[in-house]
Amino acid sequence: MKRSLGVCYYPEHWPRPMWEQDAADMVATGISWVRIGEFAWSRIEPVPGQYDFDWLDDAIAVLSDAGLKVILGTPTCTPPVWMTERFPDMFARDAQGHVRGFGSRRHYCFSHSGYREAAAEICRILGDRYGRDPRIHAWQIDNEYGCHDTILSWSDTAHEAFQTWLANRYGTIDALNTAWGNVFWSMEYSSFEQIGLPNLMVTQPNPSHELAFRRFSSDQVVRWHEAQVAALRPRTDAPLVHNYMGRVLDFDHFEVGSSIDIASWDSYPIGFLSDRLEGTPEHKARYLRQGDPDMQAFHHDLYRAVGNDNRWWVMEQQPGPVNWAPYNPAPLPGMVRLWSWEAFAHGAEVVSYFRWRQAPFAQEQMHAGLRRPDNAPAPGQHEAETVACELAEMPDTDIAQAPVALVFDYPSEWAWSTLPQGADFSYFRLVLDTYRALRRQGLSVDILPSDTTSLAGYALVLIPGMASVPAPLMAAIKGQTVLLGPRTNAVTDELCIPQPMGPAIPGFDVTATRVESLPPGIRRPVAPGGAVLRWVETLEGSANVSLADATGAPMLMSDGQTHYLGAWPDDALWSEIVTRLAGEAGIEVTPLPEGLRLRDTQHHRFAFNYGPEPVVFNGETIPAAGVVWWPRQTTERA
Amino acid sequence: MKRSLGVCYYPEHWPRPMWEQDAADMVATGISWVRIGEFAWSRIEPVPGQYDFDWLDDAIAVLSDAGLKVILGTPTCTPPVWMTERFPDMFARDAQGHVRGFGSRRHYCFSHSGYREAAAEICRILGDRYGRDPRIHAWQIDNEYGCHDTILSWSDTAHEAFQTWLANRYGTIDALNTAWGNVFWSMEYSSFEQIGLPNLMVTQPNPSHELAFRRFSSDQVVRWHEAQVAALRPRTDAPLVHNYMGRVLDFDHFEVGSSIDIASWDSYPIGFLSDRLEGTPEHKARYLRQGDPDMQAFHHDLYRAVGNDNRWWVMEQQPGPVNWAPYNPAPLPGMVRLWSWEAFAHGAEVVSYFRWRQAPFAQEQMHAGLRRPDNAPAPGQHEAETVACELAEMPDTDIAQAPVALVFDYPSEWAWSTLPQGADFSYFRLVLDTYRALRRQGLSVDILPSDTTSLAGYALVLIPGMASVPAPLMAAIKGQTVLLGPRTNAVTDELCIPQPMGPAIPGFDVTATRVESLPPGIRRPVAPGGAVLRWVETLEGSANVSLADATGAPMLMSDGQTHYLGAWPDDALWSEIVTRLAGEAGIEVTPLPEGLRLRDTQHHRFAFNYGPEPVVFNGETIPAAGVVWWPRQTTERA
Amino acid sequence: MKRSLGVCYYPEHWPRPMWEQDAADMVATGISWVRIGEFAWSRIEPVPGQYDFDWLDDAIAVLSDAGLKVILGTPTCTPPVWMTERFPDMFARDAQGHVRGFGSRRHYCFSHSGYREAAAEICRILGDRYGRDPRIHAWQIDNEYGCHDTILSWSDTAHEAFQTWLANRYGTIDALNTAWGNVFWSMEYSSFEQIGLPNLMVTQPNPSHELAFRRFSSDQVVRWHEAQVAALRPRTDAPLVHNYMGRVLDFDHFEVGSSIDIASWDSYPIGFLSDRLEGTPEHKARYLRQGDPDMQAFHHDLYRAVGNDNRWWVMEQQPGPVNWAPYNPAPLPGMVRLWSWEAFAHGAEVVSYFRWRQAPFAQEQMHAGLRRPDNAPAPGQHEAETVACELAEMPDTDIAQAPVALVFDYPSEWAWSTLPQGADFSYFRLVLDTYRALRRQGLSVDILPSDTTSLAGYALVLIPGMASVPAPLMAAIKGQTVLLGPRTNAVTDELCIPQPMGPAIPGFDVTATRVESLPPGIRRPVAPGGAVLRWVETLEGSANVSLADATGAPMLMSDGQTHYLGAWPDDALWSEIVTRLAGEAGIEVTPLPEGLRLRDTQHHRFAFNYGPEPVVFNGETIPAAGVVWWPRQTTERA
Repeated sequence: MKRSLGVCYYPEHWPRPMWEQDAADMVATGISWVRIGEFAWSRIEPVPGQYDFDWLDDAIAVLSDAGLKVILGTPTCTPPVWMTERFPDMFARDAQGHVRGFGSRRHYCFSHSGYREAAAEICRILGDRYGRDPRIHAWQIDNEYGCHDTILSWSDTAHEAFQTWLANRYGTIDALNTAWGNVFWSMEYSSFEQIGLPNLMVTQPNPSHELAFRRFSSDQVVRWHEAQVAALRPRTDAPLVHNYMGRVLDFDHFEVGSSIDIASWDSYPIGFLSDRLEGTPEHKARYLRQGDPDMQAFHHDLYRAVGNDNRWWVMEQQPGPVNWAPYNPAPLPGMVRLWSWEAFAHGAEVVSYFRWRQAPFAQEQMHAGLRRPDNAPAPGQHEAETVACELAEMPDTDIAQAPVALVFDYPSEWAWSTLPQGADFSYFRLVLDTYRALRRQGLSVDILPSDTTSLAGYALVLIPGMASVPAPLMAAIKGQTVLLGPRTNAVTDELCIPQPMGPAIPGFDVTATRVESLPPGIRRPVAPGGAVLRWVETLEGSANVSLADATGAPMLMSDGQTHYLGAWPDDALWSEIVTRLAGEAGIEVTPLPEGLRLRDTQHHRFAFNYGPEPVVFNGETIPAAGVVWWPRQTTERA
Repeated sequence: MKRSLGVCYYPEHWPRPMWEQDAADMVATGISWVRIGEFAWSRIEPVPGQYDFDWLDDAIAVLSDAGLKVILGTPTCTPPVWMTERFPDMFARDAQGHVRGFGSRRHYCFSHSGYREAAAEICRILGDRYGRDPRIHAWQIDNEYGCHDTILSWSDTAHEAFQTWLANRYGTIDALNTAWGNVFWSMEYSSFEQIGLPNLMVTQPNPSHELAFRRFSSDQVVRWHEAQVAALRPRTDAPLVHNYMGRVLDFDHFEVGSSIDIASWDSYPIGFLSDRLEGTPEHKARYLRQGDPDMQAFHHDLYRAVGNDNRWWVMEQQPGPVNWAPYNPAPLPGMVRLWSWEAFAHGAEVVSYFRWRQAPFAQEQMHAGLRRPDNAPAPGQHEAETVACELAEMPDTDIAQAPVALVFDYPSEWAWSTLPQGADFSYFRLVLDTYRALRRQGLSVDILPSDTTSLAGYALVLIPGMASVPAPLMAAIKGQTVLLGPRTNAVTDELCIPQPMGPAIPGFDVTATRVESLPPGIRRPVAPGGAVLRWVETLEGSANVSLADATGAPMLMSDGQTHYLGAWPDDALWSEIVTRLAGEAGIEVTPLPEGLRLRDTQHHRFAFNYGPEPVVFNGETIPAAGVVWWPRQTTERA
Repeated sequence: MKRSLGVCYYPEHWPRPMWEQDAADMVATGISWVRIGEFAWSRIEPVPGQYDFDWLDDAIAVLSDAGLKVILGTPTCTPPVWMTERFPDMFARDAQGHVRGFGSRRHYCFSHSGYREAAAEICRILGDRYGRDPRIHAWQIDNEYGCHDTILSWSDTAHEAFQTWLANRYGTIDALNTAWGNVFWSMEYSSFEQIGLPNLMVTQPNPSHELAFRRFSSDQVVRWHEAQVAALRPRTDAPLVHNYMGRVLDFDHFEVGSSIDIASWDSYPIGFLSDRLEGTPEHKARYLRQGDPDMQAFHHDLYRAVGNDNRWWVMEQQPGPVNWAPYNPAPLPGMVRLWSWEAFAHGAEVVSYFRWRQAPFAQEQMHAGLRRPDNAPAPGQHEAETVACELAEMPDTDIAQAPVALVFDYPSEWAWSTLPQGADFSYFRLVLDTYRALRRQGLSVDILPSDTTSLAGYALVLIPGMASVPAPLMAAIKGQTVLLGPRTNAVTDELCIPQPMGPAIPGFDVTATRVESLPPGIRRPVAPGGAVLRWVETLEGSANVSLADATGAPMLMSDGQTHYLGAWPDDALWSEIVTRLAGEAGIEVTPLPEGLRLRDTQHHRFAFNYGPEPVVFNGETIPAAGVVWWPRQTTERA
């Protein structure tokens, strides 16, 4: 498949006379795609019911005439102020009950049916006008669901919808009381109308109550999203896209993704490192201008799984300093190229930079573009040009099935954030730590959803922290080399402790009879090296003890190809575990220098140096921010 | 007196067929008491006015038939949802005005007279049915007043009640204005109806205003509590109990205790260390799986004083990992036994474990019980069995009056949290530090309330940080070896600076003319060793300077047996002071190895090793988590 | 000019019989001025419309008869409770919408016209009675605008006033939309009535929106203030004063100052160090009992600029421990004298201690006075006496124009707190760091407002971080040795990026094409010593590179006398820069020992030792907290 570059562009932000030159400059940079329109509702419909398509027609014409393929966004994440006057109750509310009003973006509650219908209506209108327009090569629906913590809403609208959702899920109030264990603390209800949202309580809500609200909230996103899909599908043959944001976990991306064609996401490596990743100060200082070495790859692999037929893009690629993280350094020279190539190596069809030119006004005025606000080229533009040239010379980066599969499951994130048991227990972090451990050994990874029913072709499968493993997946691990745990299959679907207690893996005698969470700084050594920290389970059963702590307590138990890990390993112990499992699975590992990462496509092995200094690998010196690749046959696994 | 074990049990949580076996298993474990009912209102009265006693009758019969003595709880800390529909304004509000609604527990405002009467009514109904039932050996009223910060409520109901309380206390608005010094900042009122709750202000409220609200809030608890006592007393001869929670300080436990028979408390040593104790990271790491060496003993001694005739219990003893602290490690093997024996050595009649079996659902599903959720014995059960056997062999652990008395006073906590003057000045911490200093020298301690009128029999008395010393107590120190300060008698009953300035000890010429609070890390050395930190007073007067800092400023001043301490000592200085005072008082001290603690009963000396490694003491090696005891004569003080 | 001492006194707090002796004691201490009345509204008008002047007449007579000059405060910062009953909507609201009610002080919203008129009315009444009274030598209007974060109010009243203010500023809604760039995120409005306050949004508001609210809020203070000025001016010839608080930045002090005669401020060196200054723990420990060596001097120089004709006072000088900082240690002996002399050396006409006697009640009962609550002299009184004696022997401390000017601009604080781009970017801190760097080289500094049009007489001018440099100031730097940056002239007046990009200094080819914010701990070395941190700009242009980082990136660019600094230097680099610029400007620098500071008046050089140990300087040993001075000729610059 041919990979290509794109860019996000806002013609409404710039004087009309600039458009032609902008389009020409994009093409000269090597850009093929341009995303427009997703924040432009106040220009498309400045007065309710009065549409102004002239400027948009004009912009599409200019861009298309220059040779660019247009992605048109539905503008529903920024309803105009008049919409909020029509629906004064359309706003979400935060957990303290404060309204989240007009003045920025994403100011709507997913449960508001009036606004949902208005959003579908603008999609129908746009679809009627542009759906069969051959210049529109893709549609983006809304933008970044969940950005700014917008999935959970404690509005009256959400409250009412939640009660209906509960009635649908449980049928009778007795069923709900039983499912949630409401006999505890006399929390029993006699009607669904009595059930509140799980906020503003004296102490924590019933975890089953909170998990239900998390599920409901995700479902509301899916329902919202599908209203737009339903409006556009009959009106266009172009692919539909939703553009996700990194480490947004409050809704099920797989479910949203099931109704569209392409998953895209927004890759801001430096912003993420500062804003939404755990890590030691040393780690954050080392990767300050490069981003975390695994965060992007993880999301690339995740959205490859979210996209139908593995179709995925980077819709917004950081091109320079951003504005929204606590601290915003500039990328190390070379990183814009590295990030772009890394995305392609993981299978991205398009890498689209955000944005063409830095806006000189409003909230994101300090967010770099490929161009400076004065229209001079910014450093990112030169790197994009390099990527475009290199792409032209390397037509084939087709993906290959990875040797290793890692299961990722949104409801597990909701379960463990509801019932963490330790203040810093994060499902996402656990999965990312697992992913890191694989990558430090040079392995390429496929991420799979929890409704996977076949693991064919994978030499090694990892299922860390999955709250409840569905029966088909549990069946599919039979005959596989698989690592489950910690905390995998520890609770029921209603977030209760099952009988028998987990992990309840058929044919494997191990039970986690007790769990401990450990504060930062507490480590329990495990031979032959490394330690466990943060989370430790007491494992009982007749399976073999593969690793034990200094007191002899089992940390890893095994029965043939099945392994259960009852703790959170540190890096050294993870390396030991991955090396051991890979050996069993017959996969060759390649322990990598700090900061170097590999990715294998069908025909190439890529290496990416995230470190701030050169590394020698495979006989080559790879500079800081360097990318190299070799034909696959020379490095293929034995 | 015979000491015995108990357990908390929730028959409503378990299938009826399990009850008999559960009861038999409890008895086999050596348990004599079982607490039930305190969260079961929705099962006792599922519909308003319709009572279902069948299950409760049944449970009482099963438990009693097995030989267990039943403690029946009034279920008023978990009003059913229908109660909140009857009284929509019964909820407390937090200081920002947000309602603290239904969905967990303790969702009521102590000032709500409608709910108070409803709570009394359920007591009358339970009392009518079970008050003379010989199988009910004790009653628990409500549970854990103040848990989840529930004493202070900023509801309209509380506001109105506060105004009435103020009118009762002050009589006229002029008297209130004068008492509070409302001329300051033109805060003068012309009627009680103008006075708000001390929240939502521009800056801090008048301390007298805030202290009045703290007093009022405590009084509302007492009034609430006494409504239940009044309902039950005429209906039963069984002792009445309230079950307190550790380090809950917002109401006066002595006042609540005055109307009941037995004080009980909830001892969660590991949870407390993580959740509600100051301490260095090293201290918290060292005692991670044991709990703080003094926290439990302090509360034991406190509730011995709260209980009438020194009658007190541990109603909930941690049996394994809990669910509610930020981090929840498991107890070191042996600690459940140690904690139990420590309670008995301090005079507990009953130590009752929370809970029999870990619930597999709802908020506390990760809270260990003596049994696992799958009904297998958890480690705590085996330790409980050991304690039961050991108890049977040692019939006498009668308490003895301690050589040292320490005065503890709830209003002082309210005073200094209202007017801390230093961000980390905590009255509780000051008293606990004093207590620790005594215990590190091997001393047993009695805690006394501030209305103590005689100190007979005590060789040494300590009154740290008591905001206003009542005249009878001040009179009682005459002829005693006594240490007052820091900050003792520093303010009037209305939290103003008295004339003359404190400490105003009759016959003792010392005045604290100025105070300083010092930030963390600042220490002022005091010869012969140690330092003061956090709080330093400028002492003037003709009394002798017993300890001075490096500049010669007096830190401890003395006149005969009376000593005033004008600073917060570090551990080393505390040891110096305690050793010196004990010497003067003719008490032998026993400097202890780190983590070891002693407790003397009438006939025994107990030693408890809280440390994670063995210690040698008195010629014996005491293992980690070890408990040993010797007949008293061999160790009695000279 | 003759300098003198004052004191703040509250006759309404003390029994009438004490007044004469108090006045006599003040005079004996060497005090000439006494401030009264500013919190006494509830005594002046106990019932609406019923005035009680008897006590005030009496107090004025007693004080004046003793020889004291009276400063009378308008009592408008503490409206009585009846005023809040008349205007229930007069309270400010915080950003979450919570009312900031009665019970402390400053409980009013500056936008409330009803209360503004009531405040003017009490001024008219006071002016009518005392305006021509020769015993009243000055009037203080309100007190400490902005203390307790009271400038920004999110009340309905403020909301409505903001809309009116916007309509006045922008004329048409289209103009506003364009100025703010509201096309971004479809934030376009069709009427001013649609515009909310910039709170309770999903994510950050448009920076232009927020800056407009900051400007509006400052303007409301000016309008409020001028209502009182208008009431008093026709009624008195005595000078009008406003008393400002340290590091209060939310309104423009220069604008408030333009309508009055004397600027005064409240100097609490130890409270400020604990409460409102950044600094390492080592710095805060070293200066714990002295205060920061530059904070007071900076404000002295600032208020000299705010006052008309350089007239300024310290209205409240810390005399001992305060009550309001997180930690409140006592001043090192000698510091009260040092602070007083430092103020005089910077040109204060009056240094007035807060307060005469420590109040034994209400919020500030732990705030020291010159007298203890029991009326014994506190340490501060003795130091005040020393200052009074020394003052009498040194009649001349007339100020001289400093060789260095530093521009300070309130709107820049609002701009960069709205758009910090790095979490710890503070305009105030940047300017204070610049000031520190000058002072560490022994330089005296004049602070200038941004509307300065002439820089005549200054050898060196520094304009750090000024968001938008007005044209007259930009013109005035021509021919001067000047340092601009970092971030100077980086945005337009509407907080947008200008075209061309900044700093846009006429005749100087440098552009800051990109900026980076760096997290704590990240430093980029710059030869010949030092480093940059926190903020780094990418500088391009043909000007000379005077300093570059290790990669060669320019940090300081220069063209003749004009210098632009593109980063935030550390102390070492600041010393390098100041030494270099002073050399160019022909100013002699005097690198000072840690903690020592100099100040040159017309005829003297003063030295102040803020350090906790003696230093040797100029051949003299200056003790800790020591002050020395020499006739100017011996130390004058070459």
